[in-house]
Amino acid sequence: MTQWEFKEIEDFMLQHMQDSAHDKHHVYRVLNAAIDIAQSETWVDMDVLIAAALLHDVGRERQFDDLENLCHAQIGGDMAYEFLLEQNWDDDKALHVKDCINSHRYRGDNPPTSIEAKILFDADKLDVCGLIGIARTLVYSGRINEPIYIMTDDGSIVTEGGGAEISSFFQEYNYKLKKVHASLYTARAAEIAEKRQKSAANFYETLHVEIIESYENAKILNF
Amino acid sequence: MTQWEFKEIEDFMLQHMQDSAHDKHHVYRVLNAAIDIAQSETWVDMDVLIAAALLHDVGRERQFDDLENLCHAQIGGDMAYEFLLEQNWDDDKALHVKDCINSHRYRGDNPPTSIEAKILFDADKLDVCGLIGIARTLVYSGRINEPIYIMTDDGSIVTEGGGAEISSFFQEYNYKLKKVHASLYTARAAEIAEKRQKSAANFYETLHVEIIESYENAKILNF
Repeated sequence: MTQWEFKEIEDFMLQHMQDSAHDKHHVYRVLNAAIDIAQSETWVDMDVLIAAALLHDVGRERQFDDLENLCHAQIGGDMAYEFLLEQNWDDDKALHVKDCINSHRYRGDNPPTSIEAKILFDADKLDVCGLIGIARTLVYSGRINEPIYIMTDDGSIVTEGGGAEISSFFQEYNYKLKKVHASLYTARAAEIAEKRQKSAANFYETLHVEIIESYENAKILNF
Repeated sequence: MTQWEFKEIEDFMLQHMQDSAHDKHHVYRVLNAAIDIAQSETWVDMDVLIAAALLHDVGRERQFDDLENLCHAQIGGDMAYEFLLEQNWDDDKALHVKDCINSHRYRGDNPPTSIEAKILFDADKLDVCGLIGIARTLVYSGRINEPIYIMTDDGSIVTEGGGAEISSFFQEYNYKLKKVHASLYTARAAEIAEKRQKSAANFYETLHVEIIESYENAKILNF
């Protein structure tokens, strides 16, 4: 890939990144992580991987129009495919990029199969590990106006449940952030995730204690 | 204050809390912290303090209509005053609540003077200390679509600057979160803040390292 080709793809990406949890910095971190992971693999089509990393979230913007029914991995794959054909990419290479983007989602039922798709999946999931994962998830909670936690009537914090749809940061931590390191495909990504996992767990547990402590004087109202 | 009177004020508050960084849970934590702090003071008008804690953020909703020119502490003070008069509160008590709300803002040029105003200020600021402060600030970044960090063209992260207007989470940490524990008025609040401060500093530093590390392979692209 020439610098000029990279710049064309990058410009298309920049036009479509608006949400601060999935902004251009997320894309550059994923791109860097993808290149890092690729170095530990035997053979990787770097053009496909770089284009897929740059374009993996371009469908986010449209997903916000209808969060329940639209999937950014599907929309983004189509957008990337059409864009790359316009850039005179071969159909099979453009289709490969589309396939990587289609299968990068943690919540998807379409797991990655090619090495490039697995690397993109892992690079994207690394950005959900550690404190950057904590920070991005909280930013996304604010973006879609979900609370940090939900309390039951008896004053306990809901930590499980929620499933495929985010309900609160605490539920999202237990559904995804806590487990994501175990879903990775490549050894290099698993190694980075392992290092970050402890910080994320520590954040969650310390925050939980802080919140519980901040309610301890409620009993004083006594009604 | 009777349970019925509390409920009336609480219901008014609940009608006006929509943003997930300043939701009803924030209000209940502030209320509990205020009661906790009040126990260490000689004499506190608990009716004024409880009403002010419940109503301190009711002006947030309207502030979102024009973030640059409207101040939720001013709007909220007016809303609380009018509401309490409708609830047949004495004018001087309602004015005292209004005054507490007017002076609770970290960025304000109107510092608290009465003990009730100082306690409300401190109770509200405790919710900016520690990991709950980190979490709420990130949620708020997402709400107003500000990034976690800004990078200069040479690839370094902007950590200072921004001032009264939030530019990124990193700038907000250095402008407010890092310093807020030193701005507190009461000994009890300072004691709680002290305990939480280390967790917040640790989060910021570890996240900073994670982000820097995640760019380290960028050089491989070499253009």
